[in-house]
Amino acid sequence: MDRRSFLKNTTIGAGAAAGAAALAAPAYAQGNRTLTMVTTWGRGLAGVHDSAQRAADSITAMSDGSLTVDLKAAGELVGAFEVFDAVTSGQADMYHGADYYFVGQHPAYAFFTAVPFGMTAQELVNWYYHAGGMELHDELGQIFGLKSFLAGNTGAQAGGWYRTEISGPEDFQGLKFRMPGLGGQALGKMGASVQNLPGSEVYQALASGAIDGTEWIGPWADEKAGFQEITKTYYTAGFHEPGAGLSLATNRDVFESLSPAHQKIIEIAAGECHQWNLAQFLANNGTALQRLQSGGVTVREFPDSVWDAMGAAAQAVMDENMGDDLFKTVHDSAMESMAASSNWITRSEGAYRAQRDRVRA
Amino acid sequence: MDRRSFLKNTTIGAGAAAGAAALAAPAYAQGNRTLTMVTTWGRGLAGVHDSAQRAADSITAMSDGSLTVDLKAAGELVGAFEVFDAVTSGQADMYHGADYYFVGQHPAYAFFTAVPFGMTAQELVNWYYHAGGMELHDELGQIFGLKSFLAGNTGAQAGGWYRTEISGPEDFQGLKFRMPGLGGQALGKMGASVQNLPGSEVYQALASGAIDGTEWIGPWADEKAGFQEITKTYYTAGFHEPGAGLSLATNRDVFESLSPAHQKIIEIAAGECHQWNLAQFLANNGTALQRLQSGGVTVREFPDSVWDAMGAAAQAVMDENMGDDLFKTVHDSAMESMAASSNWITRSEGAYRAQRDRVRA
Repeated sequence: MDRRSFLKNTTIGAGAAAGAAALAAPAYAQGNRTLTMVTTWGRGLAGVHDSAQRAADSITAMSDGSLTVDLKAAGELVGAFEVFDAVTSGQADMYHGADYYFVGQHPAYAFFTAVPFGMTAQELVNWYYHAGGMELHDELGQIFGLKSFLAGNTGAQAGGWYRTEISGPEDFQGLKFRMPGLGGQALGKMGASVQNLPGSEVYQALASGAIDGTEWIGPWADEKAGFQEITKTYYTAGFHEPGAGLSLATNRDVFESLSPAHQKIIEIAAGECHQWNLAQFLANNGTALQRLQSGGVTVREFPDSVWDAMGAAAQAVMDENMGDDLFKTVHDSAMESMAASSNWITRSEGAYRAQRDRVRA
Repeated sequence: MDRRSFLKNTTIGAGAAAGAAALAAPAYAQGNRTLTMVTTWGRGLAGVHDSAQRAADSITAMSDGSLTVDLKAAGELVGAFEVFDAVTSGQADMYHGADYYFVGQHPAYAFFTAVPFGMTAQELVNWYYHAGGMELHDELGQIFGLKSFLAGNTGAQAGGWYRTEISGPEDFQGLKFRMPGLGGQALGKMGASVQNLPGSEVYQALASGAIDGTEWIGPWADEKAGFQEITKTYYTAGFHEPGAGLSLATNRDVFESLSPAHQKIIEIAAGECHQWNLAQFLANNGTALQRLQSGGVTVREFPDSVWDAMGAAAQAVMDENMGDDLFKTVHDSAMESMAASSNWITRSEGAYRAQRDRVRA
């Protein structure tokens, strides 16, 4: 099936339904309701589970319990990667997760988490609120019967831990490296032997030499994982996830059965959670990086030749998906917004911060 | 009166009152309520009025009208700079404004908008949510009977419009320049003749030569003001307001009379509004800068020698306030958080964005 055609028909149908609902007085479910939230995160996983919990708690508190969210972490009702099907089928009411886990459902979901050489967290929200991103997220949701909102962000993820310093793109030939998603595909094009290990196995694989390096999230989570015990070479900037957004997606029939007040509570709770969670990662990464550096970790940056090779590889991965009309529409919208807002951010805040940090040093 | 002593007594008193309230079942006001919001912005002023309106609308919508916010723009009930007294006295229920307008009430309010060589918008929320900023905002609020939350942000403000290029700090000697606040005080220490004109008079003053230059906000607002018709020399990065936060402050007695659900609605609406408004400024600044550059405006950056002089002057202005205990507490908390999170942001997202923009160019 051509997704684009299906989408257009669905959009028209939904519009007509909304019109009918406006004419007839809508009948919202009365009384207190409990919505089951499933997540892609193990209970207690720092940052990401926190984000799901905050969204759930805000919704419950703002509705005075008339809309209570019952959070089921990964494995408690369904597995981490089963949450999409659980919500589209109605088994659960909403999920909190990273939408790029669902590129198998539609490749354009990648843009609502992160794509290699794509948007930072701030550029993502600029696009989301004010340059068409939210509307495109909703177009995707209409295909699958979801109402989605951004609801968390890890910020830019670190380039990762390496056993030895990287001096050029040739060092990736045959390098056994752990990196999932489109970033991993790009690294494969550079000659790396890409491993996609679950989090629980990464420390042991790096310690035993089964892999030569790994990316994880950033200093806060990486320090908890303990990679600094194995190697002291840390690349702080990476190309693969420059601002990984997390989403809260509600079954669309469930969402439409809620009152406008409850719908707004879900929307605003998700948005506030995005900001709170991004700040949580950045504040904790800041102090964790200080501890790592005090503990002897050397912070490095890839040379330009490596960034050039990463850029070419990332573009090749993107090009492989451009045959899908909706992917191309989302890609072009995101890249146009990114170019405009990035130029201003670089020339104002970017230049300011560079000068401030130089002057205060 | 020593503000710090007063604060401590107030805090203890409030704690005891809260304890008593927890023992006796609290009696919240029943039925629908309307809260009057006054603002420091003229009705319709792009970005800043939008931010106040969004917070008001979110509160009204999420509460299903049980807490309706009636927005009175500057001049409709009280003048822009009278909102603080209107809310502390109970004449109005809440204000939306920039807290650095109220440094006369307490100099530490500057940190919740912006201080020269201070935090960017992201660094501000990192500190606010996760490194003590929100608690310090609340300490200030207890002195004056306010419950305050961050509720908007303009992002980094532009360095401004100059008739001629700036080649060194000596060029500020006798320069007639419009800049309010602590930034203006710093510019005065560099020898400038600082003017503090209201917005409505700036265009004419620049056109007539009464002033040699002006800062305003950023490309979106500056373009609306029309400064590009007078000069084409635009400095995009400035030292004076690197991320100007806006606040929503509710009369503390009013806030405490609200149900926990209504209190949470105000808190989350304000937080979401901060993110939405920052994205609004950055997205619109991005496209406005493209138009300005297409129209012949030349974008410049101050040389290092000017930044050095700005840094010294800003530090001198800060030092003048450090005798106030609470100012010093807030300053030290903010600077410690900024140093930690800035280092990570520079080494991760900052390095990424520089490489991405180089590779994609």
